[in-house]
Amino acid sequence: MEHVGNKIEAPKLGEPYLLTPGPLTTSIAVKEAMLKDWGSWDKDFRAVTQEIRQRLLTLLGQGHEDFDCVPMQGSGSFAVEAMLGSFIPEDGKALVLANGAYGQRSAKTMEYLGRDFVLLDKGDYLPPRGDEVAKILADDPAITHVVAIHCETSSGILNPVEEISEVTYAAGRKLLVDSMSAFGAVELQPSEVHYEAMVSSANKCIEGVPGFGFIIARKDELEAAQGNSHSLSLDVHAQWAHMNKTGQWRFTPPTHVVVAFLEALKAHEAEGNVAGRGARYTRNRDVVVAGMRELGFETLLQNRWLSPIIVTFFCPADENFVFDQFYQLMKDKGFIIYPGKLTVVDSFRVGCIGQMDEHIMQQVVTAAKESLAEMGVASAAPPSAALEERAKLAA
Amino acid sequence: MEHVGNKIEAPKLGEPYLLTPGPLTTSIAVKEAMLKDWGSWDKDFRAVTQEIRQRLLTLLGQGHEDFDCVPMQGSGSFAVEAMLGSFIPEDGKALVLANGAYGQRSAKTMEYLGRDFVLLDKGDYLPPRGDEVAKILADDPAITHVVAIHCETSSGILNPVEEISEVTYAAGRKLLVDSMSAFGAVELQPSEVHYEAMVSSANKCIEGVPGFGFIIARKDELEAAQGNSHSLSLDVHAQWAHMNKTGQWRFTPPTHVVVAFLEALKAHEAEGNVAGRGARYTRNRDVVVAGMRELGFETLLQNRWLSPIIVTFFCPADENFVFDQFYQLMKDKGFIIYPGKLTVVDSFRVGCIGQMDEHIMQQVVTAAKESLAEMGVASAAPPSAALEERAKLAA
Repeated sequence: MEHVGNKIEAPKLGEPYLLTPGPLTTSIAVKEAMLKDWGSWDKDFRAVTQEIRQRLLTLLGQGHEDFDCVPMQGSGSFAVEAMLGSFIPEDGKALVLANGAYGQRSAKTMEYLGRDFVLLDKGDYLPPRGDEVAKILADDPAITHVVAIHCETSSGILNPVEEISEVTYAAGRKLLVDSMSAFGAVELQPSEVHYEAMVSSANKCIEGVPGFGFIIARKDELEAAQGNSHSLSLDVHAQWAHMNKTGQWRFTPPTHVVVAFLEALKAHEAEGNVAGRGARYTRNRDVVVAGMRELGFETLLQNRWLSPIIVTFFCPADENFVFDQFYQLMKDKGFIIYPGKLTVVDSFRVGCIGQMDEHIMQQVVTAAKESLAEMGVASAAPPSAALEERAKLAA
Repeated sequence: MEHVGNKIEAPKLGEPYLLTPGPLTTSIAVKEAMLKDWGSWDKDFRAVTQEIRQRLLTLLGQGHEDFDCVPMQGSGSFAVEAMLGSFIPEDGKALVLANGAYGQRSAKTMEYLGRDFVLLDKGDYLPPRGDEVAKILADDPAITHVVAIHCETSSGILNPVEEISEVTYAAGRKLLVDSMSAFGAVELQPSEVHYEAMVSSANKCIEGVPGFGFIIARKDELEAAQGNSHSLSLDVHAQWAHMNKTGQWRFTPPTHVVVAFLEALKAHEAEGNVAGRGARYTRNRDVVVAGMRELGFETLLQNRWLSPIIVTFFCPADENFVFDQFYQLMKDKGFIIYPGKLTVVDSFRVGCIGQMDEHIMQQVVTAAKESLAEMGVASAAPPSAALEERAKLAA
């Protein structure tokens, strides 16, 4: 299979690359699409909205006809809350699978909603596995929905949604997926993985700018969601029904961000859709992981669990290593990295998504090498506690 | 007092002016500010957020030290819902004052929240007056909060918030103001009008692009709001506390929209802040109203009630007048107008806000004149039912 590659453009002179899980470095073309004002009521803008919805659906591949796409204003977390509040009815009960900040946030959202849930908390990064999910479902027949995080960017782990889906539907329950940082680069085809709804946002693997998210859900679930939502603004059913009736968003959409997203979707298609985008990110990851390991850095996760989205590295044990200084030195060289979220040992993260290719990632490694030297860090090796931590997860 | 005028720039060739109440026509400089990607965690972006909050507070004038500003992702309605859910506790009760779609939307939001409220519904445009509010408050001691719309863009009326505030506080209750489309062009100084909180959004009179709103509230109300919100995403207290602690938004902000808004705030200051901006919009309104009246059009409202934000005109009675055709003819001439929202008689609206001055508004009148001629409309006079409708409201 041949992919037509995107030309990767450098940011303007003096602007750093964002090695973060979104907002990320977007193309000049995407940003230039924002140089025009649009009337949100006008038919030209309605056509943009319609095209975005259709293009997103098409990315699901076979079986996408059973789904519809509902864009939602706000950040990704707004869209997650919209999904939970709209699809888990007041008399439902959720099993929330957490191994990091985003699973925890779904649990916290359920608390706000005042709806029943149980939390399987695997700590900083250990993945929820099919067998343990199956057991919880068998033990608690009141559970109606399982909520899973596709790529948990707290650690960068790609969770095993396939096995989670299998046991969920084997037990007659429903799956909702937070695919925020994975959708568009990691396949989530309903013909392969069964689910009712998933959510992502504009500023992740499609490489748009932040300002809205979207829920992709089965049409019968959308239909059944009427009256469930705790929030007028975040009511997925109402947004869907209004959009299908009028072509408009219920409330003012972030017009410039929406138009930029259409530009981003066209580039995504030109790169070969999910497969093409995923291939570039995978090369990005492979180059940065190999290069950083060569410098003595260690990843939190063994290769089997690494996502092509973001990678967690342990901070070096060397006492000369100070993260804030490392961050600034990397920024001075043109790269904004991301702090870690592990609670047990110090770490930082490097994103692989956005308008960057393997050549840029090689430069990231060079910048890290120089930054270590400038700090007087002789070895990038992590403390032994970090390696003990890692040993908890089998390869 | 001398105002340093903004240079009003034309949109790019072929782009229509948006005569709508937001999204509106913004300056090239505002849009060009979006040509850069920002890391939302980075200190450069945190500084932008801090400057925006401070600049918005300063617009309140004397007494702004008692307030703080909390930006909120999503459209203006998201910010309104955030305000209602965060400041009206579960055991509170609201009096919602409605004379159009936005008052109705606040009532609907209260329904979603499942919190107690009464609705004073004045129909399509009649303003809620101080004496009737006072009577409702006297009759119902359970009411804790009054919710008022500053400029109701359904009709374009500027509601009498001063007299509503007076009777609200005389009765020992609290006022929340939806100043979505007025803030930045119509003064709402706490030294003149007492209130606990108000809400507006980026894409209104400050002339930014859409993507977030903001709540400006008394610090003691923000403190007391902990635990009130029905929604994680829309929790004003949590957003405020997190922002004050970390300088960051809790969840991904629409970075490009935020940076564009700072540019818009600088232009707002250069134009002479609220007074300067309000003066230009007032001239815009005066020119379009005088010109359209000369063509035979009639406004829904007498002069005393006209806002400098948006004006409702009755559709001509002439049977050759078809709104959709008029809309397209105006669009072809470079002007996107806005449909009306009156339920009794047909109408349309012309916005006075955005990067437009009196010269542009004169062109709008000329375009309307030509469009009428092209449609074969001999007289722009409204049906008699329209004038009867208008007579309900005393000047």
